[in-house]
Amino acid sequence: MNERPLILLTNDDGVYAKGLKEVTEVMRLFGDIVVVAPDSPRSGMSHAITVDRPLRVNKLEEEDGLTIYSCTGTPVDCVKLACNQLLDRLPDFVISGINHGANSSVSILYSGTMGGAIEGCIHGIPSIGFSLNDYDTDADFGRSKMAVARIFQVVVEHGLPDGVCLNVNIPKGDVKGINFCRQTRGKWEEEFEHRTDPHGRSYYWLTGYFNNAEAEARDTDDFALKNGYVSVVPVTIDLTAYQAFQHMKTWKF
Amino acid sequence: MNERPLILLTNDDGVYAKGLKEVTEVMRLFGDIVVVAPDSPRSGMSHAITVDRPLRVNKLEEEDGLTIYSCTGTPVDCVKLACNQLLDRLPDFVISGINHGANSSVSILYSGTMGGAIEGCIHGIPSIGFSLNDYDTDADFGRSKMAVARIFQVVVEHGLPDGVCLNVNIPKGDVKGINFCRQTRGKWEEEFEHRTDPHGRSYYWLTGYFNNAEAEARDTDDFALKNGYVSVVPVTIDLTAYQAFQHMKTWKF
Repeated sequence: MNERPLILLTNDDGVYAKGLKEVTEVMRLFGDIVVVAPDSPRSGMSHAITVDRPLRVNKLEEEDGLTIYSCTGTPVDCVKLACNQLLDRLPDFVISGINHGANSSVSILYSGTMGGAIEGCIHGIPSIGFSLNDYDTDADFGRSKMAVARIFQVVVEHGLPDGVCLNVNIPKGDVKGINFCRQTRGKWEEEFEHRTDPHGRSYYWLTGYFNNAEAEARDTDDFALKNGYVSVVPVTIDLTAYQAFQHMKTWKF
Repeated sequence: MNERPLILLTNDDGVYAKGLKEVTEVMRLFGDIVVVAPDSPRSGMSHAITVDRPLRVNKLEEEDGLTIYSCTGTPVDCVKLACNQLLDRLPDFVISGINHGANSSVSILYSGTMGGAIEGCIHGIPSIGFSLNDYDTDADFGRSKMAVARIFQVVVEHGLPDGVCLNVNIPKGDVKGINFCRQTRGKWEEEFEHRTDPHGRSYYWLTGYFNNAEAEARDTDDFALKNGYVSVVPVTIDLTAYQAFQHMKTWKF
């Protein structure tokens, strides 16, 4: 590229989150940055879009090579607004994160951070979602930043196949290396906490723990993460279960 | 099965939507029904979960073989609450819909109806999302009901592979047949409508149209739907782009 690339940043922890500030610092090394991120946390928003009310946008900062907007919508809304209203041209890359907390295994389906990256991919833009396996709002992103820079450089060098983005999860603490992985089979065992309000009415808090269905599978993202490696899962936007057609050949409607 | 199956119903148009009433009528032929659906429309909520506030549940109706709850959460929250709190045992099937409006192609990613079906699948339950290609709140579901009954019976007969659910879209008007399909490549071209409020501040409404990237591909869900066929897409919860590993073999981190 002759001119500096235009890099769109978003996240689901909101425009003021530390993980977004840290990734902004890294990505400024590589291009001009536009941040469009939710005005407050939007964790668990998945690929949600806002259809029942209009969106508002607020320009928070503008300096040489860096513009920051907040938006009242979801991470996917942020990417759509950036691509269709706020930017003069499509960004060259969409980077989402760095999320406070892992989005490995089936958590990718609930993740607003990955929603943002997948939306970039739908727009045909090389897109990466980054998450750190540490929920602390003041987490240490020092080692994460090195991984982000390295993975971004490799994507610049090789490109990404059409319809594929990356789900990158970074371990807390020391990083032993960076591994390609597949999505771990598993699910959240939800144990809602049932409480009663001061007026005697029930309410339920979602809580729970992750149950890994293949904890020893060395090619999975959860295994990598648990063992100190950054996991890189190539993610498709085509949800067709192609191998299932075989099973269904005998079906007669 | 010796006893009548337990069938969980949900949707994203809300507990009072016509499409849910119609599918309830059909499914009562096949089993005992528990409906857990959002208390108001949750279109575009994808696989979102509610993490920032507690959920409330309201039992609206209880009669022989039919119990109806509304819930303040998303379709995914509804399935989680049903499986983990409201039911004595896991349901034998999860049916989501019938959605008012198609969820073919990439719309599956934004769809709360498919969020509910995919969550059932994560729980290991045979799950189907149904959508009618008609946004009218008073749409005619007559032909849809026959398709729902037929597809459900075939799923009962054959089962579904682990980690696979079905995304079923039903055309408006006459139904010529039922076809297995893959997800169409395409995207929404978003044209936000930019307006100014009475106080002079900008706001944006999400709008837009679907742009089919392979309108003549006869094996896709959009092609089936446009030509009067019910489309049945097997959907995976494993988003790993396995074919991309080939592309990435030469990458060095």
